[in-house]
Amino acid sequence: MQFLQTLQDESNDIGASIYGLASELFPINRSITGDGVRETLKILKIVCPGLAVHEVPSGTKAFDWTVPKEWNVREAFIERPDGRRIAEFLKNNLHLVGYSTPVDCLMPLAELQKYLHSLPHMPSAVPYVTSYYEERFGFCLSHEERASLTEGEYRVYIDSELKDGALAYGEAVFPGESDEEIFFSAYICHPSMANDNLSGPCIAAHVAAWVADAPRRYSYRFVFVPETIGSITYMSRNLDALKSRVIAGFNLSCLGDPGHFSYIASRYANTLADRAAKSVLKFFDANFKSFSFLCRGSDERQYNAPGVDLPLCGLTRTRFGDFPQYHTSADDMNFITPDALAGSFALIREIVESLEANRRYRVKTLCEPQLSPRGLYPSMGTRGSAWEARSIMNFMAYCDGANDLFRVSEIIGEPALKLADIAKILIDAELLEEAPANDEVIL
Amino acid sequence: MQFLQTLQDESNDIGASIYGLASELFPINRSITGDGVRETLKILKIVCPGLAVHEVPSGTKAFDWTVPKEWNVREAFIERPDGRRIAEFLKNNLHLVGYSTPVDCLMPLAELQKYLHSLPHMPSAVPYVTSYYEERFGFCLSHEERASLTEGEYRVYIDSELKDGALAYGEAVFPGESDEEIFFSAYICHPSMANDNLSGPCIAAHVAAWVADAPRRYSYRFVFVPETIGSITYMSRNLDALKSRVIAGFNLSCLGDPGHFSYIASRYANTLADRAAKSVLKFFDANFKSFSFLCRGSDERQYNAPGVDLPLCGLTRTRFGDFPQYHTSADDMNFITPDALAGSFALIREIVESLEANRRYRVKTLCEPQLSPRGLYPSMGTRGSAWEARSIMNFMAYCDGANDLFRVSEIIGEPALKLADIAKILIDAELLEEAPANDEVIL
Amino acid sequence: MQFLQTLQDESNDIGASIYGLASELFPINRSITGDGVRETLKILKIVCPGLAVHEVPSGTKAFDWTVPKEWNVREAFIERPDGRRIAEFLKNNLHLVGYSTPVDCLMPLAELQKYLHSLPHMPSAVPYVTSYYEERFGFCLSHEERASLTEGEYRVYIDSELKDGALAYGEAVFPGESDEEIFFSAYICHPSMANDNLSGPCIAAHVAAWVADAPRRYSYRFVFVPETIGSITYMSRNLDALKSRVIAGFNLSCLGDPGHFSYIASRYANTLADRAAKSVLKFFDANFKSFSFLCRGSDERQYNAPGVDLPLCGLTRTRFGDFPQYHTSADDMNFITPDALAGSFALIREIVESLEANRRYRVKTLCEPQLSPRGLYPSMGTRGSAWEARSIMNFMAYCDGANDLFRVSEIIGEPALKLADIAKILIDAELLEEAPANDEVIL
Repeated sequence: MQFLQTLQDESNDIGASIYGLASELFPINRSITGDGVRETLKILKIVCPGLAVHEVPSGTKAFDWTVPKEWNVREAFIERPDGRRIAEFLKNNLHLVGYSTPVDCLMPLAELQKYLHSLPHMPSAVPYVTSYYEERFGFCLSHEERASLTEGEYRVYIDSELKDGALAYGEAVFPGESDEEIFFSAYICHPSMANDNLSGPCIAAHVAAWVADAPRRYSYRFVFVPETIGSITYMSRNLDALKSRVIAGFNLSCLGDPGHFSYIASRYANTLADRAAKSVLKFFDANFKSFSFLCRGSDERQYNAPGVDLPLCGLTRTRFGDFPQYHTSADDMNFITPDALAGSFALIREIVESLEANRRYRVKTLCEPQLSPRGLYPSMGTRGSAWEARSIMNFMAYCDGANDLFRVSEIIGEPALKLADIAKILIDAELLEEAPANDEVIL
Repeated sequence: MQFLQTLQDESNDIGASIYGLASELFPINRSITGDGVRETLKILKIVCPGLAVHEVPSGTKAFDWTVPKEWNVREAFIERPDGRRIAEFLKNNLHLVGYSTPVDCLMPLAELQKYLHSLPHMPSAVPYVTSYYEERFGFCLSHEERASLTEGEYRVYIDSELKDGALAYGEAVFPGESDEEIFFSAYICHPSMANDNLSGPCIAAHVAAWVADAPRRYSYRFVFVPETIGSITYMSRNLDALKSRVIAGFNLSCLGDPGHFSYIASRYANTLADRAAKSVLKFFDANFKSFSFLCRGSDERQYNAPGVDLPLCGLTRTRFGDFPQYHTSADDMNFITPDALAGSFALIREIVESLEANRRYRVKTLCEPQLSPRGLYPSMGTRGSAWEARSIMNFMAYCDGANDLFRVSEIIGEPALKLADIAKILIDAELLEEAPANDEVIL
Repeated sequence: MQFLQTLQDESNDIGASIYGLASELFPINRSITGDGVRETLKILKIVCPGLAVHEVPSGTKAFDWTVPKEWNVREAFIERPDGRRIAEFLKNNLHLVGYSTPVDCLMPLAELQKYLHSLPHMPSAVPYVTSYYEERFGFCLSHEERASLTEGEYRVYIDSELKDGALAYGEAVFPGESDEEIFFSAYICHPSMANDNLSGPCIAAHVAAWVADAPRRYSYRFVFVPETIGSITYMSRNLDALKSRVIAGFNLSCLGDPGHFSYIASRYANTLADRAAKSVLKFFDANFKSFSFLCRGSDERQYNAPGVDLPLCGLTRTRFGDFPQYHTSADDMNFITPDALAGSFALIREIVESLEANRRYRVKTLCEPQLSPRGLYPSMGTRGSAWEARSIMNFMAYCDGANDLFRVSEIIGEPALKLADIAKILIDAELLEEAPANDEVIL
């Protein structure tokens, strides 16, 4: 596999590695079930240590839903009257409407049109269309190609199969000192599209690999699921554990384009995940966009549903639907870049590091301490000299046991990780200690 | 009576009916006491079913106040030196200062001027002046007429009577399933002026007529009282009942002009009445004006007084005092329109319907339900297809038992009544239920 | 003493009196210890009744700090190669770096430069430099003078003494009806500079003199301390008393320049001191600047430190550091004015009066009272007549026992002292009473 080469050759270039993994996964025909999902998980497992694959049989109830039949495709195409094949599934799996039933028949152009999908406003792009829960078939093609079709008899050929099988998903858990978990979810049901959403699972797998080797205060859980039915099915089997353990979760999607970051709030925008995401983004990308839960679109819908109530927000670069390539063949490997993927990885790593570092502190001395003998304050008082130590002083002023690092960061305008570094210095100087659990808390 | 004809002929044209009632009431000499109030109540009773008239004797204590003597007028005018009469009460009762004591005497112009009121900035309008609590007399006339007065002896004639009598008010109660009450107050002490305030009691009477025939979750109480002394007197006899029952109240005033709506907040702007009024107005009249309690002016002053603390806000179109015709003869039947009255009626009906519909709901399933088999979601997934069902999904996302319809409306930007319709669909689909009383509530 | 003359001659001109006191104190060499502090306190005592001077020995621990050695200077200068003396301490004590160690030696210009401080951007000003906690010496001079120095041997002469002695501070307490205290702190460690900070202690002393003669609901405490080490030392001996008694405190600094006022918030901007300062300033100086605690710089740093948590904010005119004269010889007696000092005194007096007057009230009647028989409301109702009594009505509307005067002031937009005057009228009219302590409070 080419991407393994990349992984080994450029082990320090995280962007190239994520991009390589996405390239490897790109051609596979993914859907909410089927062998494409299994193959995707198998490849993700190469990067994500300990990724366990679970299969849930068709017909299994999952809250209000039922796991559907499994769908697989061998071949599909349309044959023009002149014998030339178009909309060939084997060339681009977007050509086939997801979950198309098998068919082999002839029909005139007028009839064929009823089964065709194209985008007049993006004439060279093939749209992405699915019909998971009503049996039908259809083809997607560029509007240019569709416009070129002439009268005549067309053969419509789909060699697909819908049968009792299973829905597959992957899960990797990395225990930490605490049972409390940081949770990541990415979806693996989209066929050949790069940003939405190979960027999500490929970054998640790399974050998992990094987490696996890092010291961990918290436990970590990564799931790779088909969107909607997959996250619902996963939760129907794991909800109690998730509710008792997850303290912050993130749904990863559309993280490979070069646009600014976007944050999609949880239902009330008030969870630790929201606070961590906003706190880090404020300094990481001053132009990040903040969206309310009304602008949700991915599995944050399920994780935030009433009664589920997981503390989870969504992270994207340009939000799904806000880039024109969304859900078309134009969302290809040229649309995402190693740099953008590396930046997204760095963002998530900083969110994780900030969560790991986040604590409430309180000072161990009354009044300001004497910093100058400790080398933390200039010994000579001139106009402005005190400002050099301002970050330390501001940090200590709010280390009253009530505020965690995200809250202090918000008040004094310094990144949480910088505050964590200052905290280390002050703890070494015996000026600071972690606040006891029973201090009154302001968050 | 002409307006009864209107009521019968055009029973569906609510604006014409309200306007007709106002026309019938317009010529009557109303004040805080007197036969004009009784006659007004008698006519209102034709529209407002079950309107009971109560009389409170002069001298009765009402909190800090005392019910004053009853005032009635037979005739009043000024006779010019040439014998021509001006400021004739029988032509327009605004000509006489309210509560004028009887007099019959001659005086020169210079002396007469002390008893005259006119408006230099509105030279053709007759102002509205009263002196309820200090015995005096006076006349109001147009500034044009006043300017035309020449030197000479004037006869000042007022055949009025101030005697122990009673203050009359009307009250209609419509019991509902619950003892909890929606309360409406309108005042009936203003003589021949249309917007301030025949619009108020005429709309209130029609709302009462509609409520009387509607299914009622809540009970309803309508009072027609002289402003200030009337509402105070009413409360001095009913405060405990009001405080234990009223969950939302509205003072109706100046609702007949064609201006945008105005909302005058309760003391802390946080009652159910405020929430209902603002929630409905936001969609009913996007340009409505929101005033704080500091801008109050009518009986919301009494209902919101400390210790009274009823959950009541004021509703007007152009706020009292903000239209130039205010408290002058220019506030006549040409200033109000059937359309404006009909719109005000529709607003209040929607507020009532929203209050009746308002509940906290919670979903009956975990995660989003599968809407497509229920015909509530498109079965084919294409770019944007999910947005069609967005209102349903957004509504359900906040049906966690904590939010009532007004709160969900505020969050997701859909009218409360639309949400009530969606709720019915979802309850039929067994996806939603009313939240139990002990759920944690966010309002 | 000239300023005593001023005090006697113009006893009503508070600005001249404060200015005179500052003039008297200006030439004295103050630092965090030394005889200059003692002399300063001795003079302040002439104005501030009952000012007690306390001495804390060098070496005494004060939280994280230790009281340093006492520093005194007899003479200091630099002698040029031509024998002319410059940077003479006896001419301006700013010429000597604070806490300079004794020295008498010759050095070439290049070596001398290492010990010189000047301000290229303010070439005629002498900067203010200190080195309290690292033993060194140095001189400050104007950049013009420094630029004129020529090559040659310079004599550096400092006849100073660093020895075990004491840190002196002053304290005056004025008991009131209640043990609850209003607290004022000013610092007395700055040598010859007028705004920063002779303005602070000179105004504080005059406020103390006024408080001493005024009826006092609260007790008052004024402290005159060296900045930082002085306030810390003071608190190390008095913290329990301060924490149990102080309900509002103010650090006074830079109050003599003609700029707009500035308010520096307490740590969370939510104490009674913050509320009083902002409430009064809003009407006293509509253009006052509001700074967060991040913009602190004086002893509010210590009084607000975590665990200390005194309800104290800072008051200045132009904030320390925001005027170019700050910490230079340009901050002289020409920079401050009697008018500005008088205005600052008036502000603080109004804050004190407002605190003294501040109470929660509740009305004694239900509904609005009848104000006209009490002469508080016009007896004739004409357009606009009610507005004359608007302040009274608005005040009463929020006298529900929940709001203190500062809160009502914020709601209705009238100064707290005006509301206190209205309260007196209403109490006399038996319409108002002080709310009991157990009423639910909104602040």
